[in-house]
Amino acid sequence: MSTPRFTFVLFGATGDLAMRKILPALYSAHLGNSLQSDGSILCVSNQDIGPTAFKETVSEQLPAWAAPGRHTSEGAASFLNRIDYVKLDATRENQYAELASRLPQDGRVKVFYLATAPSLFEPICRNLAAHVELADARVVLEKPLGNDLLSSRTINDAVACVFSENQIYRIDHYLGKESVQNLLALRFGNSLFEPLWRREAISHIQLTIAEELGVERRGEFYDATGALRDMVQNHLLQLLCMVAMEPPTSLNADAVRDEKLRVLRALKPLTANDLERNVVRGQYTAGAVRGKAVPGYQEEACIASGSHTETFIALHAEINNWRWAGVPFFLRTGKRLQQRMAEIVITFKPVPYPILPLPAGLAGEVSNRLVIRLQPEESIKLHCLAKQPGDGMKLQPVVLDLALDKAFGERREDAYERLLLDAIRGNLALFVRRDEQEAAWHWVEPILEMCRSTPFAPKFYTAGTWGPAASSALLSRAGFAWHEER
Amino acid sequence: MSTPRFTFVLFGATGDLAMRKILPALYSAHLGNSLQSDGSILCVSNQDIGPTAFKETVSEQLPAWAAPGRHTSEGAASFLNRIDYVKLDATRENQYAELASRLPQDGRVKVFYLATAPSLFEPICRNLAAHVELADARVVLEKPLGNDLLSSRTINDAVACVFSENQIYRIDHYLGKESVQNLLALRFGNSLFEPLWRREAISHIQLTIAEELGVERRGEFYDATGALRDMVQNHLLQLLCMVAMEPPTSLNADAVRDEKLRVLRALKPLTANDLERNVVRGQYTAGAVRGKAVPGYQEEACIASGSHTETFIALHAEINNWRWAGVPFFLRTGKRLQQRMAEIVITFKPVPYPILPLPAGLAGEVSNRLVIRLQPEESIKLHCLAKQPGDGMKLQPVVLDLALDKAFGERREDAYERLLLDAIRGNLALFVRRDEQEAAWHWVEPILEMCRSTPFAPKFYTAGTWGPAASSALLSRAGFAWHEER
Repeated sequence: MSTPRFTFVLFGATGDLAMRKILPALYSAHLGNSLQSDGSILCVSNQDIGPTAFKETVSEQLPAWAAPGRHTSEGAASFLNRIDYVKLDATRENQYAELASRLPQDGRVKVFYLATAPSLFEPICRNLAAHVELADARVVLEKPLGNDLLSSRTINDAVACVFSENQIYRIDHYLGKESVQNLLALRFGNSLFEPLWRREAISHIQLTIAEELGVERRGEFYDATGALRDMVQNHLLQLLCMVAMEPPTSLNADAVRDEKLRVLRALKPLTANDLERNVVRGQYTAGAVRGKAVPGYQEEACIASGSHTETFIALHAEINNWRWAGVPFFLRTGKRLQQRMAEIVITFKPVPYPILPLPAGLAGEVSNRLVIRLQPEESIKLHCLAKQPGDGMKLQPVVLDLALDKAFGERREDAYERLLLDAIRGNLALFVRRDEQEAAWHWVEPILEMCRSTPFAPKFYTAGTWGPAASSALLSRAGFAWHEER
Repeated sequence: MSTPRFTFVLFGATGDLAMRKILPALYSAHLGNSLQSDGSILCVSNQDIGPTAFKETVSEQLPAWAAPGRHTSEGAASFLNRIDYVKLDATRENQYAELASRLPQDGRVKVFYLATAPSLFEPICRNLAAHVELADARVVLEKPLGNDLLSSRTINDAVACVFSENQIYRIDHYLGKESVQNLLALRFGNSLFEPLWRREAISHIQLTIAEELGVERRGEFYDATGALRDMVQNHLLQLLCMVAMEPPTSLNADAVRDEKLRVLRALKPLTANDLERNVVRGQYTAGAVRGKAVPGYQEEACIASGSHTETFIALHAEINNWRWAGVPFFLRTGKRLQQRMAEIVITFKPVPYPILPLPAGLAGEVSNRLVIRLQPEESIKLHCLAKQPGDGMKLQPVVLDLALDKAFGERREDAYERLLLDAIRGNLALFVRRDEQEAAWHWVEPILEMCRSTPFAPKFYTAGTWGPAASSALLSRAGFAWHEER
């Protein structure tokens, strides 16, 4: 399905995000014939280069960031035909007339993608409003949308002066992943899973986003941010919503987002006591990831000496509603961990009374588990038990594998590609609504507060491990273990 | 795991069943090192041949009936070392002294396998009792165990004069199949399935045993028997028990058989009205199976002209208990059908309110199904729906495949092999208890009664089809269709 005619205006076009993610995603959509042939991409930044030089840069960068095996020089050449470039200082209103003159006045869809520092969101919106007809335009916002509830509200207020909520596309690229959407398809397209999807059948749920990378070139930003803001408030809480939401009445964007909001508002507030017991913060020290020595966090460039910023966080959350009361949701994310991996693990309760014998040494493996992998590969696996062939009636673990790649021969879209196409098409379902975002900030506020107090300094962990020992203890106190530790 | 020391006495050793099934199954167990090295097989029949000639016959027949790829001439030679032969007229008591003298008096397990006409069960048991110490012996009985409730009781009474119930191993080889036992493992080894295994979640259940063969050389026997006695009273009702039973308190033979018995006793009795509406009898006419022309039933050898014997039967059964009330169980078996196939299909109810769109033309495929294949191959497949990759949120059918062969590298036992080893080891769990057998006869009695009345003549179906049209109508009246017709 192709898009309508569009102009895609990319602010921050010379930045990392644009070069590594957004332009390659548009390129992939272009190669897949998903972009309307007349659709154009107007790239904007304050760098004083002309369209020719900008396109050369894109042309040089594309091969490195395009989806593996998809890049061809003819493909790139035809993609570059869509691209134009205009220099603009986003804070200078008088420069927007030039930008406005570049936008066709033929009723096509206008999408403004703000891949800039959030401090520029307010001036960009204000200045656009002075020069461009925005009644049917859309704006796409990238994280970080603020540092806390207050700053997030300030940004949202500024954007809301110009765009109504249904014109605002807040990206959380985890929502663009096939496996996350498949979670909804499994839950609400089948009658098998929903009866099990509740406290009566589920023992606990784990959500992990583990990175191998350190802070890389983002030291200054990261040291002011930390894992809680960078990953939990947005990605992990969004995944939690997808797992825990009630069935929406339709796939309409607001029907889905209403249900996600209800989950966020039902999150059990964290008390001072919870914070000590149920939150583990960590910071990596020098170690080795995949056999390669790496420095500790405090040795990285642009990190304040004695920094208390967490590069790892694990949480025990609960949801105060009838479906989930008492079911632990363990959330975890960190940098410089053993393996790049994101997954959702739903562990079902054991059988009430075991009548079939297990082979020795399998006592910890007896619970059924649904494992939804988001990266590095996307897959959905159902771990259960079957009979060992041959004599007797012994059980043995088996995996029912919904191999997404094998099940469907087609090319699958990258998360950014999917979300950019949705933005051009005007489908808000996979974007975060303001009230969701603010509810998430509201829930993490007490942790942010706590992080400011010196006694709660992060615990050190060696780079290349699974985080501080306290993270394992968080689960073992409840009688569980992280999925990879079993 | 090897067996204890044993003597396996095979009555009817020169018959079809012995040559095609029992000796090859013992041979396979021998090759798999499952038989204790000192265990011997004493073959008995009334044919006047010596051990050498008998062994030559076995040696000639084995390659054709051994499991594919397993036969070797060294293997056969070492297997034949276990075999001895004794001629015996089973009705002549005075000949049993010779048989008794061949049985070692060293406390080893004695298993008497009666692969003879059931009319010989009584004299064999009586004569054995006169000459052999049977206190710790076992007797294995093959179907048909009677023609109806009364004749079945007569046989059971005769055997019970000599053997106590826990010495009697009534074979139903469907219970020896890995996939049937795996059904128990799935149900009771996992917490995932049991909450769904009930009227609230299940729409209906289908059990099919379809054959491509006609009556072959068994015309005389079959014309006096028919599909109901040959397949429903035993195999199909046993499979129904495995699907429908409550969780037993253990895998102890009587705990399992108590639960099966409860199912049989809960079967809703068939009234005269049910018989007309819920039972379809058929008889094949000339046609073609897999492209090969075959004669009609009445043209087969030894079939009475104008015979009313059914070669096909389909039933709508119900179970009167809290778990299953109102859930249709459709049972079906027949000869000269389109394809040799045995399967259990559990269809779950559709989602209560569909919010995800289906591709056009899939409306009939939306229900989740668990399909347990027993033959020709054994497999367990879970049919559900997942997201189509790419744009939007359309559903697409996918199959979660518990490929039994691939999941486990080991060699799997044939059903007879498994059951014979269980008999030698003294494990009764997969054998049918007297009360089960008689409860099954009790339930089918009204159908037998009806079959004797002329108005209820079988409906003709062309060989190579799926039976008479009335079989499809039986399901379509309830809003369903046989699995292969979807």
